[in-house]
Amino acid sequence: MLKNLKVKDQMTTNVITSSSEEDVVFAFEKLMKKKISSLPVVDDENKIIGIITASDLGHNLILDNYNLGTKVKSVMVKEVKTIDIDSTLQDAVNKMGEDSNENGIINQLPVVDDGKLLGILSDGDILRALKE
Amino acid sequence: MLKNLKVKDQMTTNVITSSSEEDVVFAFEKLMKKKISSLPVVDDENKIIGIITASDLGHNLILDNYNLGTKVKSVMVKEVKTIDIDSTLQDAVNKMGEDSNENGIINQLPVVDDGKLLGILSDGDILRALKE
Repeated sequence: MLKNLKVKDQMTTNVITSSSEEDVVFAFEKLMKKKISSLPVVDDENKIIGIITASDLGHNLILDNYNLGTKVKSVMVKEVKTIDIDSTLQDAVNKMGEDSNENGIINQLPVVDDGKLLGILSDGDILRALKE
Repeated sequence: MLKNLKVKDQMTTNVITSSSEEDVVFAFEKLMKKKISSLPVVDDENKIIGIITASDLGHNLILDNYNLGTKVKSVMVKEVKTIDIDSTLQDAVNKMGEDSNENGIINQLPVVDDGKLLGILSDGDILRALKE
């Protein structure tokens, strides 16, 4: 089933992103206002250079772990797991589960073609495809 | 595949909960500190009476929508979608997808037996079971 479904048919294309120069507080506010769980960080050419999650930012902001004026570039995850636009949902599930631990699996994969951000695929997008 | 897997074998049993009398700011801090996305609200007998999500609380706190001292009971979702302990993962996927909209599907289902909270099943728990 998952092998017959394509990432490009299930992904969200209207992706909200962050720039590396954004203040982490501003980025967190954006995540909360839009009710989203992660923001891909892109450069001027829409190439993905990192990712930040509401979970990480919220955790560190609540614990007061950031200095005033901390920017996205200094806290973003730089080794971003992405999925190619022509992959299947099974590929995506396998990728989300790599390095999974008790904290759970990755639940958002930026969708790329030649490094450029084209969409985002969430665990919810996958489960929606499995609904009967 | 999903029809052959049981909720009780995939759920997390170590569930962090909230009481209805908790302050929403305290509850949000708990969600962020623990990096979790929702808290079932239970009464003294461990019966589930509501649920709150990091997404909802964060959204409303950022937009300053709550008065000082707002309690969980006044903001929790009272009509909680739950899943029975003897259900299959396909049942869970179908339930998560009910009433799904562009904001996505429900991604956590409290697992109950006779109304009592026994665990929680996340979309991540389901995807982990689908990994090859």
